[in-house]
Amino acid sequence: MSGSILIAGIGPGDEALITPQVSAALAEATDVFGYIPYVARLVPRAGLTLHASDNRAELDRAGQALDCAASGGRVVVVSSGDPGVFAMAAAVFEALEAGPAHWRDLDIQVLPGITAMLAASARAGAPLGHDFCAINLSDNLKPWALIERRLRLAAQADFAMAFYNPRSQARPDGFARALAVLREECGLDRPVLFARAVTTPDEALRVVTLRDARPDMADMRTMVIVGSSQTRLIARDAGPILYTPRSAS
Amino acid sequence: MSGSILIAGIGPGDEALITPQVSAALAEATDVFGYIPYVARLVPRAGLTLHASDNRAELDRAGQALDCAASGGRVVVVSSGDPGVFAMAAAVFEALEAGPAHWRDLDIQVLPGITAMLAASARAGAPLGHDFCAINLSDNLKPWALIERRLRLAAQADFAMAFYNPRSQARPDGFARALAVLREECGLDRPVLFARAVTTPDEALRVVTLRDARPDMADMRTMVIVGSSQTRLIARDAGPILYTPRSAS
Repeated sequence: MSGSILIAGIGPGDEALITPQVSAALAEATDVFGYIPYVARLVPRAGLTLHASDNRAELDRAGQALDCAASGGRVVVVSSGDPGVFAMAAAVFEALEAGPAHWRDLDIQVLPGITAMLAASARAGAPLGHDFCAINLSDNLKPWALIERRLRLAAQADFAMAFYNPRSQARPDGFARALAVLREECGLDRPVLFARAVTTPDEALRVVTLRDARPDMADMRTMVIVGSSQTRLIARDAGPILYTPRSAS
Repeated sequence: MSGSILIAGIGPGDEALITPQVSAALAEATDVFGYIPYVARLVPRAGLTLHASDNRAELDRAGQALDCAASGGRVVVVSSGDPGVFAMAAAVFEALEAGPAHWRDLDIQVLPGITAMLAASARAGAPLGHDFCAINLSDNLKPWALIERRLRLAAQADFAMAFYNPRSQARPDGFARALAVLREECGLDRPVLFARAVTTPDEALRVVTLRDARPDMADMRTMVIVGSSQTRLIARDAGPILYTPRSAS
């Protein structure tokens, strides 16, 4: 009677960036669980039940999906981007670890996807072409002091930095504090990419310096990438290319 | 007469992880450039010229590809994984910046792919589910002192860490030094994932502690992921799940 649960990444938005592995999983699913706008990207069909839930409900959604799989469903949990990067895979495993023992017997797999920082990087050039880090700037699940400490150490390590969830209406001030910390650690001339809604019709890219970066350039659909000390801009008529060379001294 | 150049990621190995965007680009290409084993993954066809080159020849390959595009070719440069992560995109932009001015008029785009660390993470669970960094452990293009400094700062920031190119026959000792630094900074009980040739028939996963990690557990086909202080193992009959919870204190 036991079913399966696949935690699948549906990429940043463009259908052409969904892997055939994930498309096949969705075609065979009996039940799909996910955040409302991600589930809305799927095409309904007979035999498929769509379970859309709210943003902050990750753990509840994970538990419902595990329950559904334990009842025999072929369950897919969808995340935008890659499920393993600030997304549903960790939430499902948190629920699994805290839940009933028989959940551990489920057939469970993570299907990777194109995560937002790599889609944004591709659209801008290759700002993550050398060592880099990825930080979730939301302080919903960790204290601001830890975020600030990580920002300072990452800057001292001279990583390029990719920031997920830079700013929301519920947290309007954190990103301004992050920019202030980065100006202290990296100086004013460091390039910053604001990449909004990449690969969708709403896509907008902007490259500025830390001097000119303003908090209102980001919202929850924006990926922010701050270059390392080595990151360069190539001027072109078709728009600049932002990239970090492979070598460093 | 000017053609186009696409820098495309063909993922970690499994055909089902190549995005439809990349498959379409390959189907329309006149010329494909890449490292020998990646080009060998493509199916030859009439009208397509395959240009395979050696591992250390990235800049030469990039220049030849740009030249071919400038002569009117529909060029695809292939990388395994994602071209923006320790791969061909930065090499092409280095060549572009140093090359003739007319190269800047080319139609040039990066097509993202599933990078090795996210494929490895998916196979093991979700070790990169919280803040993390990606470091190329090869000292071909940067000094060892910089790698060691980055390792220490990344450990102090409590990032999970994904290591590309941990070890090669030409560099047998660097990874042993990296493990020694990590034992100093993280203690002996930290989990380490060795993920070799993920999503291919040769795939082999192993999770050990830093205490038991040995240099010969890695080669150039191995992705190494070291957990943060929060990374956990869930015991299961089907094999353990390695994941990092979303929250931290």
